[in-house]
Amino acid sequence: MKDKKALFIVLDGIGGRPTDSERKTCLQKAETPNLDKLSEEGISGMLHPLGRGVVPGSDTSHLALFGYDPKEVYDGRGVFEASGIGMDVEEGDVCFRTNFATMNENHVLQDRRAGRIQEGQEKLTREIEEMKLDYDVEFQFRASTEHRGALVLKGENLSGNITDTDPHETNIKLTPARAEDKGGAAKRTAQIANQITERSYEILKDAYYNVQRKEDGKMPANVLLLRGAAQKRELEDFKEKYGIEGAAVAGGALYLGVAREIGLEAEKPEGATGGQNTDLENKIEKTVEKLQQNDFVFLHIKGMDNAGHDGKAEEKTDFIEKVDEAIGKLKDKIDWDGTHLCLTGDHSTPPSAEGHTSDPVPIIYCGEAVRKDKVKKFDEISCADGGLGHMEGQDVLKTLFGYNNWLDKYGS
Amino acid sequence: MKDKKALFIVLDGIGGRPTDSERKTCLQKAETPNLDKLSEEGISGMLHPLGRGVVPGSDTSHLALFGYDPKEVYDGRGVFEASGIGMDVEEGDVCFRTNFATMNENHVLQDRRAGRIQEGQEKLTREIEEMKLDYDVEFQFRASTEHRGALVLKGENLSGNITDTDPHETNIKLTPARAEDKGGAAKRTAQIANQITERSYEILKDAYYNVQRKEDGKMPANVLLLRGAAQKRELEDFKEKYGIEGAAVAGGALYLGVAREIGLEAEKPEGATGGQNTDLENKIEKTVEKLQQNDFVFLHIKGMDNAGHDGKAEEKTDFIEKVDEAIGKLKDKIDWDGTHLCLTGDHSTPPSAEGHTSDPVPIIYCGEAVRKDKVKKFDEISCADGGLGHMEGQDVLKTLFGYNNWLDKYGS
Repeated sequence: MKDKKALFIVLDGIGGRPTDSERKTCLQKAETPNLDKLSEEGISGMLHPLGRGVVPGSDTSHLALFGYDPKEVYDGRGVFEASGIGMDVEEGDVCFRTNFATMNENHVLQDRRAGRIQEGQEKLTREIEEMKLDYDVEFQFRASTEHRGALVLKGENLSGNITDTDPHETNIKLTPARAEDKGGAAKRTAQIANQITERSYEILKDAYYNVQRKEDGKMPANVLLLRGAAQKRELEDFKEKYGIEGAAVAGGALYLGVAREIGLEAEKPEGATGGQNTDLENKIEKTVEKLQQNDFVFLHIKGMDNAGHDGKAEEKTDFIEKVDEAIGKLKDKIDWDGTHLCLTGDHSTPPSAEGHTSDPVPIIYCGEAVRKDKVKKFDEISCADGGLGHMEGQDVLKTLFGYNNWLDKYGS
Repeated sequence: MKDKKALFIVLDGIGGRPTDSERKTCLQKAETPNLDKLSEEGISGMLHPLGRGVVPGSDTSHLALFGYDPKEVYDGRGVFEASGIGMDVEEGDVCFRTNFATMNENHVLQDRRAGRIQEGQEKLTREIEEMKLDYDVEFQFRASTEHRGALVLKGENLSGNITDTDPHETNIKLTPARAEDKGGAAKRTAQIANQITERSYEILKDAYYNVQRKEDGKMPANVLLLRGAAQKRELEDFKEKYGIEGAAVAGGALYLGVAREIGLEAEKPEGATGGQNTDLENKIEKTVEKLQQNDFVFLHIKGMDNAGHDGKAEEKTDFIEKVDEAIGKLKDKIDWDGTHLCLTGDHSTPPSAEGHTSDPVPIIYCGEAVRKDKVKKFDEISCADGGLGHMEGQDVLKTLFGYNNWLDKYGS
């Protein structure tokens, strides 16, 4: 273990756009005395995670924040999702995110989330596991929360270069997966994906559990949609890259998965959901605990993003205030003697856009080595006045580790 | 058509340097209530069109502002000038800007602009069109304003990699064009260019029109100088690149040409001259009209640059005030519900430098999705305090289109 600590907090979707006649963002409107205090004690700036004018995905942005170039290492979300729910993914495996969904006998999709199914997923899983395929390939399936899950294909001659069996719209027929390159592996993998989706319907449509769901007036979970295909490749190990060991605390599968794939020890604390109902207290406790055992800890908090996607500005503002309170508690529990903190977001999710945008997010660094600038408020306008200027994602951890004197000199 | 609009205004040469003991630039000295209001309502920053410490040309800067990398796509101004005056330029053609000039019988250049010839260019054009060449190549020539024009070579084995037949100085002998690479096409094209300049003198020196000019005490327009050789190559279509259709409103041939070459519908409104005598009212009207018919409109206003080149600080300040008034009228005519605006310059043209400099130019974005920062004045110092920080040219339109939610997400 090193003699210093580095804490990296990502508030997912923290950035916004003007929400009302005052032209203030949710973050500007929220009362955030603790975040403001960090801003006042440290140095502030603005972060364009993937550069200006690029709308970051959650996966690509986190790769960049950890110092990896998504253009070099990213080809889809499936691997991170499978890894994030604890599946064993090996080099060459092709992974998908999956949805339990509802389709009718004409193969028309009725609900992409099977009425946001809340229970019985283990029964459906056992049915899926019984599925026989006409191809020489093994598969593993695991359900996670609600309709969500992941599926891993293991075998030779596979490719992640295929489109989804999920049409991403309802009231239309399912779209078969297609190869996105001319190689035989992509063609074969698309055929396998299509067979899995077709056979899932054969297996699930008359499953006893679905008969029950229909009797209860619920939508049957009668088909498994596959999306976000990606082939596992080894990412440079975080410890090799930076020479330090680290841990991750998150509720969302994707973030646990990205952390695991780069070699961080990733843990989902009790009650962490990746939503606004997450147990922030437990996440803070776990972060403090991990910080005692590691040089570097990554804490991910997601709820702002969900509120933004749902277009709910007030909910976003409220959740930011809850997070502020939790950060205040965390701040009091940190041994600041030798600890440096970076706190930022992975992208903006303005409720008015109901999705990610390319607007930059505020970023702050705190700790004894950090120059104190004049900024006293943590928001999208105040931080633009800060001593950091405008940064990009791949510089974030290098800057944090620099404060801990963990960087090698280039030159002499 | 999209459900939003994007307006992009370039004030050519808007940036400056201190002009007097107050150390204020022309833009700082000018009264610009309307530009200041836009700045107050939106977000501000500074733009280095081609990066710090690079003096932008008008052509290279506009390519960058439209999101094209000049290092990849630029090899000379000729194509844009020819296209800008409506000539039909096809892939492989080599284009030149031309000057009617005055030379004596010893081939010594006396005036690069034939005394800024104002009339009779069509007579000279008919003479030029009669020219016979010893090479298997076709050419087209068109005069535009005053001494200006363009010439297009069409045929096999041509190259844009040659120097000018214009020595760019008077009282010296004409310099023959030379190949800038070792290929046969460049050598041949240089020979053709030299023959055109030589034969233009043979044809024009005794032309009746020039005899008249001499009798009237004017300098004869007796030679055609060629410069800015460039070979036409297909640029990625703007619509393909961004997925939106657009139009351009400009007076200067170069700007119309750049717009046309990237696939924008380019129009020169009645009375638009590319100078300080331009009809700003008509340009504003045309911009409003085009904005109704297109997703994206580019408006170019040139007069600041001309005053800067001429070293006339007061004229520059005065024209900036005229432009401010016109922008005020335009502002009132825009349906701001769903419109985002970017207003900036393509480079600085300080009267003290009588040319372009690498000093950055102010940039502002306005519209409902734009975060409101604290800047309340549009000038080279105030905007440096803004929420945008320092940007480069190729990020300008991506940022504008981001506000309209026109960008695809990278990742998931």
